[in-house]
Amino acid sequence: MVEITGNDVPPVKNKVIFTMAADHGVAKEGVSAFPQEVTLQMVYNFIHGGAGINVLARHVGARVVVVDMGVAEKLKIKSEKLKVRKINFGTKSMAKGPAMTRAEAVKSIEAGIEVFEEELPGGIDMIGTGDMGIGNTTASSAIASVFTGHPVEDVTGRGTGINEDTLKNKIEVIKKVIEINEPDPKDPIDVLSKVGGFEIGGLVGVILAGASGRIPIVIDGFISGAAALIAYHLEPKVKDYLIAAHCSVEKGHKIILDYMGLKPVLDLELRLGEGTGAALGMSIIEAGIKILTEMATFQSASVSGRIDK
Amino acid sequence: MVEITGNDVPPVKNKVIFTMAADHGVAKEGVSAFPQEVTLQMVYNFIHGGAGINVLARHVGARVVVVDMGVAEKLKIKSEKLKVRKINFGTKSMAKGPAMTRAEAVKSIEAGIEVFEEELPGGIDMIGTGDMGIGNTTASSAIASVFTGHPVEDVTGRGTGINEDTLKNKIEVIKKVIEINEPDPKDPIDVLSKVGGFEIGGLVGVILAGASGRIPIVIDGFISGAAALIAYHLEPKVKDYLIAAHCSVEKGHKIILDYMGLKPVLDLELRLGEGTGAALGMSIIEAGIKILTEMATFQSASVSGRIDK
Repeated sequence: MVEITGNDVPPVKNKVIFTMAADHGVAKEGVSAFPQEVTLQMVYNFIHGGAGINVLARHVGARVVVVDMGVAEKLKIKSEKLKVRKINFGTKSMAKGPAMTRAEAVKSIEAGIEVFEEELPGGIDMIGTGDMGIGNTTASSAIASVFTGHPVEDVTGRGTGINEDTLKNKIEVIKKVIEINEPDPKDPIDVLSKVGGFEIGGLVGVILAGASGRIPIVIDGFISGAAALIAYHLEPKVKDYLIAAHCSVEKGHKIILDYMGLKPVLDLELRLGEGTGAALGMSIIEAGIKILTEMATFQSASVSGRIDK
Repeated sequence: MVEITGNDVPPVKNKVIFTMAADHGVAKEGVSAFPQEVTLQMVYNFIHGGAGINVLARHVGARVVVVDMGVAEKLKIKSEKLKVRKINFGTKSMAKGPAMTRAEAVKSIEAGIEVFEEELPGGIDMIGTGDMGIGNTTASSAIASVFTGHPVEDVTGRGTGINEDTLKNKIEVIKKVIEINEPDPKDPIDVLSKVGGFEIGGLVGVILAGASGRIPIVIDGFISGAAALIAYHLEPKVKDYLIAAHCSVEKGHKIILDYMGLKPVLDLELRLGEGTGAALGMSIIEAGIKILTEMATFQSASVSGRIDK
């Protein structure tokens, strides 16, 4: 934190979690335990304050910014807690061609940057990333495989808890997705457009913007990790501004973190996404900063020094 | 928590950390990096709110109860934050005979129970344990070796960061301590009196009292773990009320936790004691309880069910 911010007493008051939601055409390929409409329903849940991320953000004193990056339906609600940056009504099925156009990929990153900039005047001392999108572990596994070179099996897990048959199908779908789209790991925008998602692009924008503003970015789970991978390949220096909140049970997550050399703060066997792991990680990081800034030194508290030099 | 309290909505508001301090005669045997007077100085620091435990307790919203269980000098301060239950002015050197009498050992446990009972009317939903006492990793290593049967080398670490020579001496001292005192692992009071400490006895009392009141007890690091080991051997059912906050870098701690079958919530490479790990652990546990009690269900939030049954 001190290194990232260049501040010996880094502020920790304004903790902001960007929870970005979008739908995925690939959800129609039988890769998920839940139907696509859950994305929309969970966005309503975020706005009403009933989701896991709301509970944990309240617990750690963070504010949540919910962004519709491309939910498949039009939201029937207006709220100051919600930002609508809909790139499209869900991506296309990446099992049949690119998930989005290259222009949409660029636009999703730009939207993430804009959302960050809109929130900046309200104060941002620490960023948490979060996601919601039925089908987005499928996209993230594809991204992880393309960038790290690990086989699809190694980076594909059970998402919200799919059964054995669905997992087998999911792995086959991801293999096909990579085969027909041929995403180029040397061109991160190509990867995002072919096998990514709008919320993933939005998070790439938040990460790039946060790093350029020297604000520590606390990465949540697997989907945030996939966004971090894209941001990292766009600009490797981004890595120095990232803190991995936790290690998810989604098995590709550890591979992503190892690839970027990030050591997770927590290991709580979480698999919820939304930014929940980031919220808990932010609180532990805040505790560390307070130890650094609020604790008396041995000298100031008149405590004796070492005797075993 | 639900199981421990028998309450589906366990309260988490009143989090109390009992930080118990005492001195150890064995500190004179060259086992520590810091001189004995640091115990007293740190108690002053606790009362003035400048120590690590104060910072972290504030961060997680816990109150700290500081108890002088047997600091070597009389405290020159009165504070409502401090309870004085001085069993004696430090233990005797266990390298020369029992650290305390059997009567003192019993009295230290009773004092812990009394302190708990005094605090109970103010509300205790969750207990954290903490310790301060120069020399107390030496006592805790002896306790761990006696109960778990592991050789002294396996359960002896660097405490506040002793160098290689001091560590070698510490191991020799602990071997001698066990040899001359012959503590009987079947008689936990015998172990406490011969190789324990007053703050360790006080924590045993807090643990027993908390368990009997069905209040979850969040165990801090190595010294709290040694106290838990004694409580566990007095009454094995105690284990069901214990939650291990973290795994300390003090290597005997993992052995203690494994021995009792406790899985730590956090692994942050802490080594501070005082209850600091317990404070962070309590906050994570509180977060879990809030997820359980505050989060909307899929049904209440009108979210669709599974499709891959």
